[in-house]
Amino acid sequence: MTLRVQKYGGTSVSTTNNIKKIAEKIAEDYSKGDDFVIVVSAMGETTDELINLAKQISDNPDLREMDKILSTGENISSSLLAMCFHNLGIEALSLTGAQAGISTDSFFSKAAISDIDPARIILEIEQRKIVVVAGFQGINDEKELTTLGRGGSDTTAVAIAASMGADICEIYTDVEGVYEADPRLIPNVSRIDRISYEEMLELSSEGAQVIHSRAVELAMVNKTPIFVGSTFSENKLGTLIQGSIDMENHSKVRGITHDRNVARITVSGVPDVPGIAAKIFAPLADSGISVDIIVQNTGFEGQSDMSFTVSEDSLDNALVHTEAIATELGARNVTGDASLAKVSIVGAGLQNSPGYAGTMFKALDLAGVNIEMITTAEISITCVIKQESVEAALNALNEAFLVNNTS
Amino acid sequence: MTLRVQKYGGTSVSTTNNIKKIAEKIAEDYSKGDDFVIVVSAMGETTDELINLAKQISDNPDLREMDKILSTGENISSSLLAMCFHNLGIEALSLTGAQAGISTDSFFSKAAISDIDPARIILEIEQRKIVVVAGFQGINDEKELTTLGRGGSDTTAVAIAASMGADICEIYTDVEGVYEADPRLIPNVSRIDRISYEEMLELSSEGAQVIHSRAVELAMVNKTPIFVGSTFSENKLGTLIQGSIDMENHSKVRGITHDRNVARITVSGVPDVPGIAAKIFAPLADSGISVDIIVQNTGFEGQSDMSFTVSEDSLDNALVHTEAIATELGARNVTGDASLAKVSIVGAGLQNSPGYAGTMFKALDLAGVNIEMITTAEISITCVIKQESVEAALNALNEAFLVNNTS
Repeated sequence: MTLRVQKYGGTSVSTTNNIKKIAEKIAEDYSKGDDFVIVVSAMGETTDELINLAKQISDNPDLREMDKILSTGENISSSLLAMCFHNLGIEALSLTGAQAGISTDSFFSKAAISDIDPARIILEIEQRKIVVVAGFQGINDEKELTTLGRGGSDTTAVAIAASMGADICEIYTDVEGVYEADPRLIPNVSRIDRISYEEMLELSSEGAQVIHSRAVELAMVNKTPIFVGSTFSENKLGTLIQGSIDMENHSKVRGITHDRNVARITVSGVPDVPGIAAKIFAPLADSGISVDIIVQNTGFEGQSDMSFTVSEDSLDNALVHTEAIATELGARNVTGDASLAKVSIVGAGLQNSPGYAGTMFKALDLAGVNIEMITTAEISITCVIKQESVEAALNALNEAFLVNNTS
Repeated sequence: MTLRVQKYGGTSVSTTNNIKKIAEKIAEDYSKGDDFVIVVSAMGETTDELINLAKQISDNPDLREMDKILSTGENISSSLLAMCFHNLGIEALSLTGAQAGISTDSFFSKAAISDIDPARIILEIEQRKIVVVAGFQGINDEKELTTLGRGGSDTTAVAIAASMGADICEIYTDVEGVYEADPRLIPNVSRIDRISYEEMLELSSEGAQVIHSRAVELAMVNKTPIFVGSTFSENKLGTLIQGSIDMENHSKVRGITHDRNVARITVSGVPDVPGIAAKIFAPLADSGISVDIIVQNTGFEGQSDMSFTVSEDSLDNALVHTEAIATELGARNVTGDASLAKVSIVGAGLQNSPGYAGTMFKALDLAGVNIEMITTAEISITCVIKQESVEAALNALNEAFLVNNTS
């Protein structure tokens, strides 16, 4: 018996008609004997409508109350899907995050799952019911409702799949899997049929919108295979993300990715004593601000410059914290720079293969793209650039790495 | 320090502007030192919109899923109100029914409150926070979300007030209290300033829309005073419902009420042996169908006819149960009659005062209103009539009892 955890995003459940179609598709596989846990997002525009409602009252609504409001969206869509199964004569029920046993920490609006107790889900599955779980939400130790922030429903699905030892976690969305680069920006890119967690992690953390990096990380740790496919596509094409890396794909650029939501903070003239980094980044972490790329240069006279990137929408908040600590540390000044972006090339073994970095920098240079920061990881090389240079950069990198990559 | 529990209905919280106004009104009293628990219904049309969404999927949606969907409405409005208090610089938080400690039985869509544990509310009130509770909902022993059905938010408010020993439970609606009859149907009726639980119970169970009888019953048992007033009215007029009955108001008709949602089931030719009533009504009770008026006549040959009323929308369901048991009992036949209504006169001591019943029947007869069933209680006399006769009956009873009642 195959246990399949499936996740359907907001566009997949945008109307009651779409929800009915999803139920019919699942019913067909259910009748062949597979067991199902279905994780759903809120219907289409629901989340935006709820945010607008709150904005009518406050420009800066309380995060706890906001989570209570936003979590209603998934409660509704999950119940509607359960009703569709009833119409088809299939026993089914929906569960809130709390009922599904999803415990989180207390960072409202961006909570992390701390534990899943799948006892209730298992009980229902054993009776051959289809269990529909409201994605994106959980409950903390004080019984407060929390939401998981960006990529929350993907993370819910993978976490449930991992906790139950599911055979596969299927993420359904509006594209047929993961592509080498964004097909809306670069024509004729190919779909990736199989990819390792590590490579996918680089692609998704660097901005690929198909699946969120949190979900991939969780899957990697728990060795849960993920399939990414299109909800309403007739063919069953998509991308399988799993542990083993095909040997012949080592040392190749597997994908190009970008993220327009980048801002940089630079702290200049920091006295170069041990523990400076911790002092700067601990208060940011405590405030739930994610820091992405960090670059530190030690300059003359024992002072160093430290630059790091955060998401553009957390720049203001991050600046407040950074300025406070910079004053304390005796740094010279702090500057913030919005409207940046990053482009990356991703592939297993890139760092150990000579030439990729050089080819990348040269391609960007020829395209007139100025590089603001560079960072390299095991399987990716990332350049921070101006937002307006993203398309030029992507085309240049596509020419340099992917066009001749179809061997 | 005065602890006030207030309830605001759907029209009171129909827009974010109205919600802001309510917050400002409460803030004024809060600043004088009173403590507040606020119970809210869903915003205006929200409940209808959610029902429509479900109807797009199923004409007969699963009640458990429906409760999960409907309870989202109050979660949203309660959070929005809490945000308004934050804007005013007042510490406040919203709680779901479950977070507020409201336990119910498992009759989805019409659950009864089984227990309230106000520990969390008390904890927050002690810190001078305003606590906003989502009305109309609770949680059963299996952690399933339930809704309380008609009058649910009134009941939530009274139950919380009773469990906390609140000084007063204030029910705010779109009319300035309880009137002797429906002012939309009969002109120049007077508002009742003070009324006993018993009289109010008769008024509300007989169809007065201002406050639901479940809430009044609960208040009576717990001796919780209730004030009914208008949300946005500048004056503080309204009706106080409490234990003591003013002596001078005994033996007077205090109000006239009606209910258009009445259907009758008649079981004819029932063998007249002991325990018949229990056999007929137990399965109805088990299905959560409320039976209102019951009339039994023993006829010739040891057979009796039994008639009883249910709400019109539960007629079909009640007929199914009744026909099954009637067959088992060897009754002759079962008939159902929709489109009935009832009108009642209400006043303490009516039954022991001669003449009221006769005056009522005569007034209806003169107005051409046919009486289908009669039932009398300690403080009310009720006639079941055809739905189309309601206005004629109300006018006739107003003429007969209220017009000369202003002594």
